[in-house]
Amino acid sequence: MSIENIKEKIRDVKDFPQKGIIFRDLTTVFKDKDCLHALSEELTKLYKEKGITKVVGIESRGFIMGPIIANNLGAGFVTLRKPGKLPAETWSESYEKEYGTDTIEIHKDALNSEDIIVLHDDLLATGGTMLAAYKLVKRFNPKKVYVNFIVELEFLKGRDVFPPEVEIEALIKY
Amino acid sequence: MSIENIKEKIRDVKDFPQKGIIFRDLTTVFKDKDCLHALSEELTKLYKEKGITKVVGIESRGFIMGPIIANNLGAGFVTLRKPGKLPAETWSESYEKEYGTDTIEIHKDALNSEDIIVLHDDLLATGGTMLAAYKLVKRFNPKKVYVNFIVELEFLKGRDVFPPEVEIEALIKY
Repeated sequence: MSIENIKEKIRDVKDFPQKGIIFRDLTTVFKDKDCLHALSEELTKLYKEKGITKVVGIESRGFIMGPIIANNLGAGFVTLRKPGKLPAETWSESYEKEYGTDTIEIHKDALNSEDIIVLHDDLLATGGTMLAAYKLVKRFNPKKVYVNFIVELEFLKGRDVFPPEVEIEALIKY
Repeated sequence: MSIENIKEKIRDVKDFPQKGIIFRDLTTVFKDKDCLHALSEELTKLYKEKGITKVVGIESRGFIMGPIIANNLGAGFVTLRKPGKLPAETWSESYEKEYGTDTIEIHKDALNSEDIIVLHDDLLATGGTMLAAYKLVKRFNPKKVYVNFIVELEFLKGRDVFPPEVEIEALIKY
């Protein structure tokens, strides 16, 4: 199964979450066993020779493929969560959304300076959430941070919010 | 690595989310590559010869091991989410919590009557969320539904809320 075949399985939902937006629904990809397998292989392949020690997923759609990639690479999986969900000591980062502010948190002992990290989320839109995630993991002074998405909405130019040295990969583009 | 070794990696956090509760924190298991691998092998082993077609995970901690189990078994992965998160038509189920009511949703096209299902969440406490999840997936009239947890808090007797014919597995008990 090719990346193009996976893309065909994505369901377009009009006017969700609000009027004028076409939502790219990946649940139709995840529920198909052959798509799930092909997607996991394609995502894993991107980082096979990089010495990845941790995959960091953003709650909650980044929790779906993130753990599979981690397990395939022989890495650990770390969660970036909404405020108040992580039980031990955390660092947090806030960022602007269309309406108001959001915050994500990470455990203070989740990563260390020896780590080589893949930061994963399902979809790159304006990049606000992932940029906050990137700033959070950089606090640990890791050896390297890669940024990964399944889907990129190129017309929103989310890549442009990151420092130019950040290596960003997305399998499927719109 | 044995199940006992995995259990030793779970972090006990006192008074979270409220006073008097010991929270069993699995993030310390997931972030350890050897633990993550061993846990995924142990969970997968439980369902290897069952002909599983779909693993259904409950948002959001059920999204971490659920997709790995699905991928290992050659099954698809389906999400049970909080209200308003799934973009297409859904069925929903509400259930009582200590304070007020919660609701979970599933896409109406997520499952079918040919499916053999593993319902997965990280931890069995009083069983309210999983019972609602069980009722939701039963609406599809699937061939079989297994219920799976990583951890079971036996003293809360969450098993007792399910019909006696439901096969419930939990790897680690307290």
